[in-house]
Amino acid sequence: MANYSIGVDLGGTNLRIAVVDEQGKLLEKITLDAQVKLGRDHVVRDMCGAVQQMVGKQRNSGSLQGIGIGVPGIIDMRTGMVHESPNLPDWVDYPVRNEIEKQLGTRVILENDANSAALGEKWLGAGQAVDDLAILTLGTGVGGGLVLGGQVWHGMTGMAGEFGHTTVEPEGALCGCGNRGCLEAYASATAVVRMAKEEIARDGKTALSGVKELSSKAVFEVAQQGDKGANRVFSSVGRALGIVISDMVNALNLPMYVIGGGVSAAWDAFAPTMFEELRSRCMVFKATDPQGGDGKTGKARTKTIVTRAKLGSDAGLFGAARLPLVNGNHS
Amino acid sequence: MANYSIGVDLGGTNLRIAVVDEQGKLLEKITLDAQVKLGRDHVVRDMCGAVQQMVGKQRNSGSLQGIGIGVPGIIDMRTGMVHESPNLPDWVDYPVRNEIEKQLGTRVILENDANSAALGEKWLGAGQAVDDLAILTLGTGVGGGLVLGGQVWHGMTGMAGEFGHTTVEPEGALCGCGNRGCLEAYASATAVVRMAKEEIARDGKTALSGVKELSSKAVFEVAQQGDKGANRVFSSVGRALGIVISDMVNALNLPMYVIGGGVSAAWDAFAPTMFEELRSRCMVFKATDPQGGDGKTGKARTKTIVTRAKLGSDAGLFGAARLPLVNGNHS
Repeated sequence: MANYSIGVDLGGTNLRIAVVDEQGKLLEKITLDAQVKLGRDHVVRDMCGAVQQMVGKQRNSGSLQGIGIGVPGIIDMRTGMVHESPNLPDWVDYPVRNEIEKQLGTRVILENDANSAALGEKWLGAGQAVDDLAILTLGTGVGGGLVLGGQVWHGMTGMAGEFGHTTVEPEGALCGCGNRGCLEAYASATAVVRMAKEEIARDGKTALSGVKELSSKAVFEVAQQGDKGANRVFSSVGRALGIVISDMVNALNLPMYVIGGGVSAAWDAFAPTMFEELRSRCMVFKATDPQGGDGKTGKARTKTIVTRAKLGSDAGLFGAARLPLVNGNHS
Repeated sequence: MANYSIGVDLGGTNLRIAVVDEQGKLLEKITLDAQVKLGRDHVVRDMCGAVQQMVGKQRNSGSLQGIGIGVPGIIDMRTGMVHESPNLPDWVDYPVRNEIEKQLGTRVILENDANSAALGEKWLGAGQAVDDLAILTLGTGVGGGLVLGGQVWHGMTGMAGEFGHTTVEPEGALCGCGNRGCLEAYASATAVVRMAKEEIARDGKTALSGVKELSSKAVFEVAQQGDKGANRVFSSVGRALGIVISDMVNALNLPMYVIGGGVSAAWDAFAPTMFEELRSRCMVFKATDPQGGDGKTGKARTKTIVTRAKLGSDAGLFGAARLPLVNGNHS
């Protein structure tokens, strides 16, 4: 009888809950409509009801270690409150951790969704062999998470890992965060669609003009057919990623950088430019990359790996379940 | 009788050695000419001779914990070799740690000079009240160091902390590291002199034209007299620092970022622009800065502090002496 925990991934459109044992085995998984529009209290009630039912079924599965919840937004770890979340406005400055703990009578850990994904990839995905990794999740926005020594690096107030707001172009487009030219403006799904529209405006002959509903997936399909405009879009994605990951490699010298989220499906279209940028810009990458520089020895743990996420959209869910297993009590 | 250790700061022009007890009290300090031009073996022999003499005098001072040496360059921590050092070319790929250990019969720890400075500021300087900080040292180049949990964060191969090579302008000037538009190209003493020359070329009326020997110090003096050209130079320094520290704050959410090195003497000229950039670009700074955002509560440990180094050129020396006191045995 292994101990187990519960992970919750609170997305904009649905709420996923998983029961996972301490070896990472999935015991049960459900998906609820997240009736975010019906308000916070409604979502919390649905979640708590579902969790109680799932716990009831696990009576013979050892002891519940707690509940981890991945939330899209900036979390204040001290207070267990959501500090900022464009998708969940009525969750901000509400004592969500305490409320759910009260309703369920068990320990609750809130975590940023990208941090959860980083922890999930470390536990059961691309990063199983390393202790330290960073993740970039390319979705509607660009999230980021940092795992050091097997645990999420929160920083002083739980806001670390916001690699999506690293500056790529100091005078670039204004970002929702107040900065200009953030990575998010070049490597999110939103940015892919914007850049595709710019390509269409520039050159009506691009096959992108024929796409009825532009999405990152649709632009990738056009790119795979050899369309120059669509490939230019993903070159821009790769260039921005290459610049920011170069900064990260020089700053942190981690063994692994993982790219997840919906846009990572277009890996084949953006990765060549990304690696070109890394090889030309990043001295620490060159010094640790067995494909170049002096890394000919190529021993394990001296190579900088930049790779796709393995768990797909489950990374955040598994990572959330991992939280109660690796974190001490908050106090 | 406190235990003690020895710190060595190996600069381009001189070699400084300090005996420091475990409370941080300076017991002895000497400065030797670093006859770098006479070659590595000469410098190592001078250093070892001086260290032996200094140890001889400390017979009643407890037990020697080891020797820490700060070196300007990229260190491979596993091998104890210098991986790259523009100022010490003949030290590269030479087993310097093992050689000095053999000559002195005590434990030796090599460290990058900026990492040493970060550790020194944490121990006895600006960062005494925090566990985590990053440092930028604005000298001939821009060095960087990262202390997490009171220890230098080395990353996988000891190359972490190279914040000086963060990209500020993706298509900017070519840097010695292979990248374009690095922080080093806008915030080093070398960059200050280059930008001052550009101001003179642009506007012969700037008071900079009258300076016989341009240096960061001379440009600062002209800026203090109100010269527009000289102040524009330091606005560029502040802008680049503001962009890069914004990236660092968003990524790491540390409580403190320390700016040292010779150019930091011009703090009054570049800091206003730097803080403007931080307040406009950095969401995590805004969320933790009691001067803005929601930080009105202003509790300790929730404020992001960006400040000048306190130990000046001694930071690296004290930090090197700290190395044997906080590091386990390499094996």
